[in-house]
Amino acid sequence: MPVGTKATVKTISPKELEEDIQAQIILGNTYHLYLRPGHKLIEKAGGLHNFMNWNKPILTDSGGFQVMSLKGLRKITPEGVKFQSHIDGSYHMFTPKKVIEIQNSLGSDIIMSFDECPPYPATKEYVAQSLQTTLRWAKRGKDAHTNTKKQALFGIVQGGIYEDLREESAKRLIEMNFPGYSIGGLAVGESKDDMLKITGLLNKVLPRRKPRYLMGVGTPKDLLDNIANGVDMFDCVMPTRNARNGTIFTWQGKLIIKAARYKQDFSPIDKNCDCYTCKNFSRAYIRHLFNVDEILALRLATLHSLHFYLELVRKTRSAILENRFDQFRKEHENKLDSTRE
Amino acid sequence: MPVGTKATVKTISPKELEEDIQAQIILGNTYHLYLRPGHKLIEKAGGLHNFMNWNKPILTDSGGFQVMSLKGLRKITPEGVKFQSHIDGSYHMFTPKKVIEIQNSLGSDIIMSFDECPPYPATKEYVAQSLQTTLRWAKRGKDAHTNTKKQALFGIVQGGIYEDLREESAKRLIEMNFPGYSIGGLAVGESKDDMLKITGLLNKVLPRRKPRYLMGVGTPKDLLDNIANGVDMFDCVMPTRNARNGTIFTWQGKLIIKAARYKQDFSPIDKNCDCYTCKNFSRAYIRHLFNVDEILALRLATLHSLHFYLELVRKTRSAILENRFDQFRKEHENKLDSTRE
Repeated sequence: MPVGTKATVKTISPKELEEDIQAQIILGNTYHLYLRPGHKLIEKAGGLHNFMNWNKPILTDSGGFQVMSLKGLRKITPEGVKFQSHIDGSYHMFTPKKVIEIQNSLGSDIIMSFDECPPYPATKEYVAQSLQTTLRWAKRGKDAHTNTKKQALFGIVQGGIYEDLREESAKRLIEMNFPGYSIGGLAVGESKDDMLKITGLLNKVLPRRKPRYLMGVGTPKDLLDNIANGVDMFDCVMPTRNARNGTIFTWQGKLIIKAARYKQDFSPIDKNCDCYTCKNFSRAYIRHLFNVDEILALRLATLHSLHFYLELVRKTRSAILENRFDQFRKEHENKLDSTRE
Repeated sequence: MPVGTKATVKTISPKELEEDIQAQIILGNTYHLYLRPGHKLIEKAGGLHNFMNWNKPILTDSGGFQVMSLKGLRKITPEGVKFQSHIDGSYHMFTPKKVIEIQNSLGSDIIMSFDECPPYPATKEYVAQSLQTTLRWAKRGKDAHTNTKKQALFGIVQGGIYEDLREESAKRLIEMNFPGYSIGGLAVGESKDDMLKITGLLNKVLPRRKPRYLMGVGTPKDLLDNIANGVDMFDCVMPTRNARNGTIFTWQGKLIIKAARYKQDFSPIDKNCDCYTCKNFSRAYIRHLFNVDEILALRLATLHSLHFYLELVRKTRSAILENRFDQFRKEHENKLDSTRE
C-alpha cells in the first residue's frame, strides 16, 4: 500500500496512482488526519475517499504508533493516551473508542485497533504488560465499532521480539474474531532475523484464510522474506521517502540518482520498466532535476519507485499462484536491496 | 508560454503540459541551462526537446535579463557581459556570439539576441547608450546565427520608457530583418500606463505580419491590454510562481486558497473549469494540502493556473477571429486582476 499519510501520496496524483502505479489500496493516517484537517471536516466532505478523490480502498492506521512516538509529549494511561499535538502543543486524548470514531468519520475500508506499540529495545516485563493494555484496547475498540459491514476492523498483534508474547497476543485476538490481523511493533529497530522469527511464528498461529498485514515494512527483500512467512499486506514510506532523497528502487538494486556517474547517462532508470518515468526520461535529466531542486525530480523518482514496488508484489503474486515462488525469490532476493554501482 | 526556466515547467510533467494545459510552446532560459546542466550536455542529449521530453516548440531567452540582474557580480563591456555564477561564483563571459552558440546547442525553435536590459528607473542618456550596445549585439548575434531554417532568431527592442528611443530601436532592428521581434525591458517596475504607451507605440512601428513577443508579462489583464496593442506572444512566471504561493488565477479574479473561508468549501476552484484540478478536487482539499506542505498542492494549483492562462489566450484568439475582441475584453478585464472575496 502506497502511504498517503495526510490524504495524499506524497508528490503523486490519484490519477497517477490508479493509471500508472496501479495501486489497489492506499494508507492514510488517523493521527495526522485527526489533527489536520480534522476528521469532522473529512466527514463533511463525504469521507476520505471523496475528500482526496480516491475511489479504491483505503486502510487507516490507528495513530497508535504516532502517539507513542511523541516521547515527552504523551502519557499512557489504562484508558488511552493523552498527548500534545506536534504542531501546536494542544492537548488531546486517544482512547480505543475515540480512534474508532475517528476512523468511522474517515470512512476508510480497513481500520485499525488502537494499540500500544512498545519501544525497541524493551524488557520482556514491559512488553508483557503493554500487551495486556493492547488486548484490552482491542476489545474496547471492537465493541465500539458497529459499522462492520462497511469497515473491516483489524486487531494488532504486539509482543515485541518475544515469541511467547506474540503467540499469546495472536491467540487472544483470534478469540475476538477480527476479519484480519495486523502485525505491529516490528521494523522498529530489531534485527531482520528477529523480525522473520516473529512473522515465521505468526504464520503458524494466525488463521490462513484471513489477511495478515505487516505494518511499516519494508525493503523489497523484506517484502519477499515476509511474504514467504505468510504476510499478505504491507505499507512503507520507503519507496516514496527514499525517492525524494534520490534513492530509486529497481530490480537490480537501489540507484543513487545524484551520483556523478549518471551525469551524462541518457538511458532510463530501468530500460525494462514501462512506467512514465522510464518511458520518457533519462537518468541524466532526472539527476539534473534533483541538482536544481525541481519538484518534477521528486515526482518522477516517486512514480518509478512506487511502480516498482507494486510490480514487485504483482509478480510475486503471480509466482505464488504459478507455484514458483521459491525460484522467483532466489532469482531476485540478492539484488533487490543492493546498491547499484 | 509556460515558463520552464531549468528544463521543466515547475511541478508539471510534459504530459500534463500537453494534455491538460494544451501548451503549444514553452520557454527555457539560456543563463540557467548554460550553468546547469550545461548546454554541451543538453546538446549530447539531442537538444533541449529530447532532454526534457517536450516535442512541441521551445523559445529560449538569451540570458540578457538574468546576467543584468546579477548586480555586483557582472561587468558590462562593449564585447559582452562578464559575470559570476550565482551558484558557485565561477567567472563566465556572455557575448552576442556565445549566446547564439549556446542556443544552437540547446536547439530551441525560437532564440533571442543578447541584449542589455537597462534597469528601471534609468536616465534617458543611460538608456540611449545602452540601446546602441543592444543594437550592435543584435547585429553580431544575427551574423553568428547560421542555423536560420531550424531556429528563428528574434531581435529585442529596448529603449526603456522613452518613445523616441523605442522607435529608433524597432526601426534599426527592422532594417536587420529579423523573423520576429521581442519587446524587452518592460515589466521591470514602470507603471502600467508607461508599459501600454510603449506597446501602443510599437504596434504602429513593428511589422504586422511578424510575431511580437512581450517578454516577462504579465497579469491576465496585462495580456488583454497588450494583445489590444498588437502583442502576439507572452511569457511570465506569474501563473506558476503565484500558484505555488497559493494565489490561483480564475476568470473571477485571484483566489487566495489558504484563506480560512475555504476551509469547509467543498466546491472546486472554478466550477466552470474543466482542468484536472477543478474536475476532481475541492477548495477545502487543496487548502488542506497547502496547510500541511504537500507537493500535490503546488501541482494542482499550478495546473489550474496554467490551464486558465492558456484558456484565456485561446478564448481571446477566438474573440479576435470572430471580430468581438473589444466586447470580450470589456466583459472580463475588470474581474481578471481582482482578488476574490
